[in-house]
Amino acid sequence: MKIAYLQFTPSYLDVTGNLDRAGELLAGADADLIVLPELFTSGYHFRSTQDLADVAEPIPGGPATDRLAAWADATDATFVAGIAERSDDAFYNSAVVVSPNGYEGTYRKVHLYYKEKTLFAPGDDGFSVYELTARNGTSYTLGVMVCFDWYFPEAARSLALQGADIIAHPSNLVRPDCPRAMPIRALENHIFTITANRAGSETSNGETLTFIGQSEICDPDGHILIRADHTGDHFETVKIDPVAARDRQITAHNHIFQDRRPEWYAL
Amino acid sequence: MKIAYLQFTPSYLDVTGNLDRAGELLAGADADLIVLPELFTSGYHFRSTQDLADVAEPIPGGPATDRLAAWADATDATFVAGIAERSDDAFYNSAVVVSPNGYEGTYRKVHLYYKEKTLFAPGDDGFSVYELTARNGTSYTLGVMVCFDWYFPEAARSLALQGADIIAHPSNLVRPDCPRAMPIRALENHIFTITANRAGSETSNGETLTFIGQSEICDPDGHILIRADHTGDHFETVKIDPVAARDRQITAHNHIFQDRRPEWYAL
Repeated sequence: MKIAYLQFTPSYLDVTGNLDRAGELLAGADADLIVLPELFTSGYHFRSTQDLADVAEPIPGGPATDRLAAWADATDATFVAGIAERSDDAFYNSAVVVSPNGYEGTYRKVHLYYKEKTLFAPGDDGFSVYELTARNGTSYTLGVMVCFDWYFPEAARSLALQGADIIAHPSNLVRPDCPRAMPIRALENHIFTITANRAGSETSNGETLTFIGQSEICDPDGHILIRADHTGDHFETVKIDPVAARDRQITAHNHIFQDRRPEWYAL
Repeated sequence: MKIAYLQFTPSYLDVTGNLDRAGELLAGADADLIVLPELFTSGYHFRSTQDLADVAEPIPGGPATDRLAAWADATDATFVAGIAERSDDAFYNSAVVVSPNGYEGTYRKVHLYYKEKTLFAPGDDGFSVYELTARNGTSYTLGVMVCFDWYFPEAARSLALQGADIIAHPSNLVRPDCPRAMPIRALENHIFTITANRAGSETSNGETLTFIGQSEICDPDGHILIRADHTGDHFETVKIDPVAARDRQITAHNHIFQDRRPEWYAL
């Protein structure tokens, strides 16, 4: 199967423009699983709660989920994309999973970063996985985490222990370390990871955040299969076999999940 | 305070020779905390259980602990070193902590690697930390893990959550990935790490293992402060302030321990 990230630079609050721009970049996409950045329709660095309220949408049923469903239908790909979610009176920094079969589910970011804490409610549903099928009939299990979740090894671990073969990781990274940490997340869990980051910068109330690009795909041995530049638009695809993630027997005597000894782990 | 690793190449089963050789390399050592490799008195790749039985020793009270106590007394340093431990009829792949005050405690390796499983009992005491004092009066908290424990993020995490400022990590690494993983263990826990690896190779029953050297010290930002070559003897020291590990507030809104959400973590 083919897995991909789309790195691009959303325009602040321009939901329709961002959906159109992503649609242009995805035209003719040939992939089974495509990951887009965190908050890809809205931009990241909100200048006010009102700005967030203006662009947050229900999931499913909002314009982003509808557009993703149209792309999934047109390309036969599954999409994972970050969206500002409105649910009753709360906002969540969410990622939606939309397959050719339609809406699959939503992940609400568990570990909020920096001023997100002043805007969003923390995720209240934990980490979930999705059973999906590639175009060639291969079944695979998808986990989702968002951006700063990478910092906490428990996030990827929780997805892998639930059976994830691949972790989709929509991001708006501003710290420099994630591109060298994700290979370790992939290695320690023996999974594939797809980090889709944005590029560009945004200024809010005098503070400029610059996003680091460097979207990347890692394999279960902790190798970087492909990494994008710091800047610019990049739609890049890698062919993988998700079944390769499932053999966690790294020596004749070591299975990295069966070797875990939770009785000694601090939680 | 000054922290250090000693990388060298033990000779198989030559306990007295290895203690003498390490003593020569440590002569005049000026450090507060010195980490030696895993199984530094015996070598690693045992050809039989009898070979292991011939060199395993009680902790404390065996020749290695006694020699470490003499070094600690002479240098005013604390030592962490890997030793084959005999306890009743069981053998453990252990690391001993010996300070200028004498024997502090033993860690029995929790995650056994490869054929260690045919020789050693798995650690039955979990992960512990030690309250110690540097020569300048600075108090610090030391955690200990051994070699393959690096693969499991829960090991370093369990030590950090118990308050470790520094993790001592005696190793006999043969896999290539630890030197790029330890900076992430340091970063995700905001701690110092000292990996003391051995060099050289050993053959047992026709199978040769080559140890990768590359002992390294990392800081709480995940930077490598010093890394040894793949081969050769290296006693290297870095000056640090262990207090720097304790501020886990990485942004105005993010404390990486208080931000943990164990209610959502799979164990």
